[in-house]
Amino acid sequence: MPVVVMKFGGTSVGSVERIQAVADRVVRAREAGSDVIVVVSAMGDTTDELSAMALGIAEVPDPRELDMLLTAGERIAMSLLGIALIARGCRAASYTGSQAGIITDTQHGKAKIVEIRPKRVVEALEAGNVVVLAGFQGLSTQYEITTLGRGASDLTAVAMAGAVGADVCEIYTDVDGVYTADPRIVPDARKIAAISYDEMLELAATGAKVLQSRSVEMARRHGVALHVRSAFEDRDGTWVRDDATMEGVLISGAALDADEAKVTIDDVPDRPGVAASIFKALAAEAINVDMIVQNVSHEGTTDMSFTTPLEDLPRLEAVLDALARDIDAVGFSVDDGIAKLSLVGAGMKTHPGVAADMFDVLAGEGINIEMISTSPIRISCVIRKADAERALRAVHDRFGLGSS
Amino acid sequence: MPVVVMKFGGTSVGSVERIQAVADRVVRAREAGSDVIVVVSAMGDTTDELSAMALGIAEVPDPRELDMLLTAGERIAMSLLGIALIARGCRAASYTGSQAGIITDTQHGKAKIVEIRPKRVVEALEAGNVVVLAGFQGLSTQYEITTLGRGASDLTAVAMAGAVGADVCEIYTDVDGVYTADPRIVPDARKIAAISYDEMLELAATGAKVLQSRSVEMARRHGVALHVRSAFEDRDGTWVRDDATMEGVLISGAALDADEAKVTIDDVPDRPGVAASIFKALAAEAINVDMIVQNVSHEGTTDMSFTTPLEDLPRLEAVLDALARDIDAVGFSVDDGIAKLSLVGAGMKTHPGVAADMFDVLAGEGINIEMISTSPIRISCVIRKADAERALRAVHDRFGLGSS
Repeated sequence: MPVVVMKFGGTSVGSVERIQAVADRVVRAREAGSDVIVVVSAMGDTTDELSAMALGIAEVPDPRELDMLLTAGERIAMSLLGIALIARGCRAASYTGSQAGIITDTQHGKAKIVEIRPKRVVEALEAGNVVVLAGFQGLSTQYEITTLGRGASDLTAVAMAGAVGADVCEIYTDVDGVYTADPRIVPDARKIAAISYDEMLELAATGAKVLQSRSVEMARRHGVALHVRSAFEDRDGTWVRDDATMEGVLISGAALDADEAKVTIDDVPDRPGVAASIFKALAAEAINVDMIVQNVSHEGTTDMSFTTPLEDLPRLEAVLDALARDIDAVGFSVDDGIAKLSLVGAGMKTHPGVAADMFDVLAGEGINIEMISTSPIRISCVIRKADAERALRAVHDRFGLGSS
Repeated sequence: MPVVVMKFGGTSVGSVERIQAVADRVVRAREAGSDVIVVVSAMGDTTDELSAMALGIAEVPDPRELDMLLTAGERIAMSLLGIALIARGCRAASYTGSQAGIITDTQHGKAKIVEIRPKRVVEALEAGNVVVLAGFQGLSTQYEITTLGRGASDLTAVAMAGAVGADVCEIYTDVDGVYTADPRIVPDARKIAAISYDEMLELAATGAKVLQSRSVEMARRHGVALHVRSAFEDRDGTWVRDDATMEGVLISGAALDADEAKVTIDDVPDRPGVAASIFKALAAEAINVDMIVQNVSHEGTTDMSFTTPLEDLPRLEAVLDALARDIDAVGFSVDDGIAKLSLVGAGMKTHPGVAADMFDVLAGEGINIEMISTSPIRISCVIRKADAERALRAVHDRFGLGSS
């Protein structure tokens, strides 16, 4: 029988009523003739509420204990869904990450999946059960309960889909697919019917929040077809798979990321090894760095700029204070008034001139470009946050992404 | 190092503040030089809230899934306590029932402990940790998560104390010990300093709610000394242990149970096997039966009365409706206006006349006795519920149990 993995996020299981609706949907999928694995997140804000309790007890809660605490959220959601399915006469059994054989490394709070041992899940499917599986969690190689990081229920779904050879991993969410741009900003944005892993990766990395890069990467690695669709409607959403790039389509979508800041280190000595020492120190604190620009040297020093997520700023400032002294730099400045506008499309590889067209649109709008970075299928520009939405609408329009 | 097991109930860990207070107390016990295992229940009303969600989804939630759901409660409480201990610089690690090797049979919702495999707990103690342990739960011989029944966190504590050879199992609660009678009814009731397992068993079975019979039985079987004490004060509470009966003390305490009903089956054929068929049918539905009285036969039939917990009544009526037809009995009546007054004391064994004195006190108060049952160390009388508190005060006074 074909195997379908269905993943429902926290909003989709946010109340008893929603769980009942999910159960109805799962029963329909089962009756359509598939073996079904359902992956669930914690209900609504449960994870945040549990975190808040922990932070009410300790400023920095012990990571092992915090993981033990947070995994209670999925346990509640999955067993309630199990109860709802069985009440409908549908055989079902729920399993924690540990029970389902999600084996991780030992990094509490951001564990990586190292292996899936799906024996118990496969046996439950063969016995005629719908398997309900807790997202976001696993068991470490040291037999400790771990969590995989925020939003990682998608990752659980994709990894299990790969391990059991599922035909598709359906990601149910509160939007009905991936759009050419954020419809709240660009009213005529169009739903994308199909997109390649590479394009989806670039879109995810540049601000489209519907899928995490990490999950898309894992789907690509294991050849798992993803189907991003609405938890509340039956229509098809967006397929993400290898053969999904359509000939003749230049640009798949545009995205805006307003959650980064630009950091500039002034008067960095222009000698070998300095850049390495800066970014090694940042990596050691797990600070994410995105675009990096180094200006031409003048009088033996240079300025270096990069972008980093706003949430990493507090840790970054501590690192840079120490570092600026070590490398004789003058100091650093942080600019959180920026946004990153990106265009993504596999067609760019064979169509030069996309970058020039994009710069032309922004110039026509009188918008200054502060940083530029490109990949074979993406162009990103850092601009003022205040100009960002206007810029997104302009490029979306220029490249004909709208539905009109 | 001596090992102490400390068990805290739901009220004692009912809020973040209470958990902080428990952590302070555990740290003091640790600093006093003991290895410590802390057993916790779910916070406050968590178990009831989770049950209510399940009942909002299905009239009869699947028992396996319900157990999975309910165990989330202790998971939350134990990890928060772990976080609080570690924040105080006290090494600690929390373990679920499954992780701690609490192996049970497969009866979801009321599983029995069949074995404790304390290897992981012992290793954690040896590594210098306070072990925080989820009460109420275990792992079945079929590798499924089970719960041990309401109030069974005490049982977890006693069983683990037995398995690791703890010196004492401290039961922290919202009262400061076991009293000669309920102080809300008998103002001069006295705290009992020490009591034997047998006496405590009789008191627990007759309405003193501070300890469950099941836990006391297990403590007796494994020779675990219990210390029932206040979660909010430091004073000694009540010790329960083998050698605790004091010479010369006739009566240890008096208890009232107003949570039972009297059931009478009319005109039961007076022939062999009838009583057996009645009580077998009740046992098959797990209906608890306490006192049983059969009146003298008249014209080939007899009336049979017994007491049963109010909560078992709905199931009981279904069984008896069917049964009354099968055995040609005329019908049955239920009287929920009764209460059971009991006197408990190991000294009764060697002091005849206690029963006569008790009946005399009740007669003097003009209170009618409807049923009587005795054990070597207990006398119980069923009386009208309306008379119960007055009767308790009178016998408490007559046997000199008060603190005056």
